[in-house]
Amino acid sequence: MKIFTSTAIAHPNIALIKYWGNKNQILRIPVNGSISFNLDRLFTKTQVSFDSELTADILFINGIETTGSGLSRVVSFLNIVREIAGKQIFAQVNSENNFPVGTGIASSASAFAALSLAASNAIGLNISEKELTCLARRGSGSASRSIPDGFVEWFPGETDSDSFAVSIAPSTYWDLVDLVAVVSHEHKKVGSTAGHELANTSPLQSARVEDANRRLDIVRKAIINRDFQAMAEMVELDSNMMHAVMMTSSPALMYWENTSISIMKNVQKWRASGIPVCYTMDAGPNVHVITTKEYSENINQRLASMSGIKQIFTAAVGGKTRLVEN
Amino acid sequence: MKIFTSTAIAHPNIALIKYWGNKNQILRIPVNGSISFNLDRLFTKTQVSFDSELTADILFINGIETTGSGLSRVVSFLNIVREIAGKQIFAQVNSENNFPVGTGIASSASAFAALSLAASNAIGLNISEKELTCLARRGSGSASRSIPDGFVEWFPGETDSDSFAVSIAPSTYWDLVDLVAVVSHEHKKVGSTAGHELANTSPLQSARVEDANRRLDIVRKAIINRDFQAMAEMVELDSNMMHAVMMTSSPALMYWENTSISIMKNVQKWRASGIPVCYTMDAGPNVHVITTKEYSENINQRLASMSGIKQIFTAAVGGKTRLVEN
Repeated sequence: MKIFTSTAIAHPNIALIKYWGNKNQILRIPVNGSISFNLDRLFTKTQVSFDSELTADILFINGIETTGSGLSRVVSFLNIVREIAGKQIFAQVNSENNFPVGTGIASSASAFAALSLAASNAIGLNISEKELTCLARRGSGSASRSIPDGFVEWFPGETDSDSFAVSIAPSTYWDLVDLVAVVSHEHKKVGSTAGHELANTSPLQSARVEDANRRLDIVRKAIINRDFQAMAEMVELDSNMMHAVMMTSSPALMYWENTSISIMKNVQKWRASGIPVCYTMDAGPNVHVITTKEYSENINQRLASMSGIKQIFTAAVGGKTRLVEN
Repeated sequence: MKIFTSTAIAHPNIALIKYWGNKNQILRIPVNGSISFNLDRLFTKTQVSFDSELTADILFINGIETTGSGLSRVVSFLNIVREIAGKQIFAQVNSENNFPVGTGIASSASAFAALSLAASNAIGLNISEKELTCLARRGSGSASRSIPDGFVEWFPGETDSDSFAVSIAPSTYWDLVDLVAVVSHEHKKVGSTAGHELANTSPLQSARVEDANRRLDIVRKAIINRDFQAMAEMVELDSNMMHAVMMTSSPALMYWENTSISIMKNVQKWRASGIPVCYTMDAGPNVHVITTKEYSENINQRLASMSGIKQIFTAAVGGKTRLVEN
C-alpha cells in the first residue's frame, strides 16, 4: 500500500473586475480578464491522499462524504492531474471550509485552488505558480486568482497555457477590508458554471467585454496607486455591468434582493460623505462592502444597524495558496 | 382684446419598449424607437388662452402659478408653436393633472401632449395627428406617444418631421391594465431630460440601441397577436436593459428601491405560476405591473398585501389626446 498525501490551504477571493462568460467553456478560458484580492481568515483546507488501494476517488466536504455532481467535478479535475502526472491512482479528498457555502463567498475558488496545490504536490508534480493557476482554472475559473498572493490579475489568454493569473501586489501592499453583508443564506438557484453559459444570451455582454480592458487598466492602476476613489467608481461600475448582463440574459438572472439595493445605496451615500467605501456583488444576493482597515469598524457598525442583514463576515487581504502540514 | 382659447386632455403612457437617449438633444430625436400604451383615467387637462393683452406667458399647474424651469420649458415650447403659426402672442396656460407628479407616471408626456393640441388649436394651426406627434415631441419625447390612440409606436427618424408616432392598435384592441405600484413619493433626483444626456456615458448604451429593432419587432407583433407571454419577456428585458444603462452611466443612476426589487421578483413568480403579468419601470422607483383586465383584481390584491407599497394606481388602455370644452 502506497499513500501520497499533501494538504493545502487557499483563500476565497473577491473580484473587483468580474469574470462572467467563457470563450472556451471546457477549458474555462474567460472572455475578459479579471482582478481580485484574496480574503484572509476565510479559507478552504484540503487534504489529498493518493492511495494505490483505492478503486475510485472519494470526497469528504466538512467531514461528510459527498457524491453526485460535487464528486463528479472533483473526479474530472483529478483526471486532469492524473493525466499530467501520467499516473493512474485514485485519491481520497478531505476538504473543509471555515465559512459557510452559498453565502456569496465563492467557495469553489478556494476549494479548487487548495485542491490544485494539494493534488499536484501529492502526485509528485513540480509545477510553477503560473502553471498552478492554469490548473486551478480548470476546476473553477476564479480559483486561478486564489493561487497567487494578495491582489491578483487573471489574464484571459487564448489557450490553456496562457490563461493564467499573477500577483500584481502582495497582501501587505494595501490594507483593504471586505465586509461581506450576508442578505440571504439560500443556496443560489443558478450556480456560476451554469450562469457563465448564459452570459452570451444577453444583448449587453459583448459591450461589457469590449469595455473590459479599460476597466482593468483603471483598477490595476488604482491598486498600484492605492487610489480608493478611482478604484471605487470602477468596481461599482463593473459589478453593475455584470449584473446588467445577468438580468438581461435569457432566462434573466436577478441575484439582487431588496436588502442588496439598500446596502448599495447606503454605500454610495457613505462614500459621498467622504468615507473610502464601495460595493461589489458576485453571483448572489450578498454585498461585499470594501473599505480600508481604518474605516472597517465604522462601516461594520453602519451595516450592523441596517435591517435585513443576517450576518457580516470581515476579511483583510489574504495570502497565496500554500502547503501546510497534513 | 382678443383671446383664443382651447382645452385638451391627454393621458400619460407607459412604455413597453423604452426611450432612453437622444441623437439630437434639442429636437429630442431618440436613438431608438419605442412602443407604449396610453393610460386611461389618468390625465392632464390643459387650457391655453392666447391673449393679445399679455406681455409674457403665464403658467398655472394645478391652480398654482409656476415660474422657474417649469415655466421656461413651457415658454420654449410655446415659442415653437408661435414660430410655426407666425404669430407673436402670449398665453396663459392652466394645466391640471388628476394624478400626483413624481410618482413614476410620466406627467411630462401627458402635459406636453395636452399642451401641443390646446396651443396649436388655440393659435389657429390646423395640423395632422402625425405633425402633432412631432410638435409634442419637442416638449417631451414621450409626449409624442400620448397623442395617438391606444397602443402607439414612435419611430425614431432622423429629422424633426420623420420622428413621429402612430397608433398601432386602438385602445379597445387588448384589455391590458397597468397597476402602478407606488414605492416612493420622493421627487426623482435626476429627471428624464438630464438622464437622457447621461445615456451615452454608459458602456452598454450602444448595445442596447443596436438590439432595439429586434425588441420592437417582437413587442409590436405580440400586441397585434395579443400574445401576453411573448410581450412579457421582452417588456421585462427592455426595462432591465434601460436600467442597466442607467446604473452603468457616469454618474450611476440607480432608480430602483428595495421594494422595487421585491415587486419585480414577485411578478416573475406570479407569471411562472401561469398568470399573465409582467413588470416595467421608468426613470423612477415605482413599478408598473401590467396584466389583463381578467387578472387585474387578483394582482391588485397581491400587490396590496406586500409591504413597502404606498399606493396603487390602476389604468386600462387609454385613448388619444383630444379637445374638450373650455
